[in-house]
Amino acid sequence: MRVLGIDCGSQHTGWGMIESDGRRHAVLGHGVISTVPRDPLESRLALISRELRAVIADHDPQAAAVEEVFYSQNVKTALKLAHVRGVVLLAIADAGVKLGEYSPLEVKMSVVGYGRAEKHQVQLMVRSLTGLAVESEDAADAIAVAICHAAHSCMRVAGGVA
Amino acid sequence: MRVLGIDCGSQHTGWGMIESDGRRHAVLGHGVISTVPRDPLESRLALISRELRAVIADHDPQAAAVEEVFYSQNVKTALKLAHVRGVVLLAIADAGVKLGEYSPLEVKMSVVGYGRAEKHQVQLMVRSLTGLAVESEDAADAIAVAICHAAHSCMRVAGGVA
Repeated sequence: MRVLGIDCGSQHTGWGMIESDGRRHAVLGHGVISTVPRDPLESRLALISRELRAVIADHDPQAAAVEEVFYSQNVKTALKLAHVRGVVLLAIADAGVKLGEYSPLEVKMSVVGYGRAEKHQVQLMVRSLTGLAVESEDAADAIAVAICHAAHSCMRVAGGVA
Repeated sequence: MRVLGIDCGSQHTGWGMIESDGRRHAVLGHGVISTVPRDPLESRLALISRELRAVIADHDPQAAAVEEVFYSQNVKTALKLAHVRGVVLLAIADAGVKLGEYSPLEVKMSVVGYGRAEKHQVQLMVRSLTGLAVESEDAADAIAVAICHAAHSCMRVAGGVA
């Protein structure tokens, strides 16, 4: 299956497109959509929306996956992130692509096998699982979310639930 | 000037379109976009986006105004609201409409003259200012935001700042 993983952020939104049978994963494309912090939020949202819709049109994913929003650190940051997430979910819904949502813990468990893994550990395991050294942590995180979704979907199919 | 005010909410998003010279305000249209709480958030965002874009296309506003997001009560509710707000800001940016943002205090001060006014007081003052009895509190709140923007813009013009 072709899965688009997205790591939402108001400054950097990573994306990664994989082809996966749930165990073997090939990266078809990845990137980061970056915005300028001093620009008005609505312009930054428009940029993220435009670029993400182009990625979806280019790659025609069968499913998309994002992390659930969490607010353990800073409410102001979480609220800005939720604006971006709204725009990302809209792009996915408008494209008619099925959405999976996973907690950061589930993503790390899927990829590293350890829920409290650090960002660079996720990046290393993405490299090990896909054979591709992804320089950007945001793109690596996005690929990790896509892998998590592929693994979960595969389990559901194997278990006869999907 | 023709101003679209929007009162964002994941369940009910009110909107109100006014024509105003900053002191006299006529309501050109108003309404509420309601979503079903048990539907997936991405479908609800798609509905809000679609209907709001239709309102913008119908009325061609010169400016739009929303309340700033605040999180005094419940972080989970504020995060859901921020998703909706992201989609609303995107629709405004995509239409190339200028955006004004105001605190709930500023809106209430503009309309009621008292920053701690209750919802029904806002509704009563909107009725008094526009000559229109708006049944929905969400639509009345949206009209109040539009009035606030028109009043502020008029002051800026009068003061030679705009």
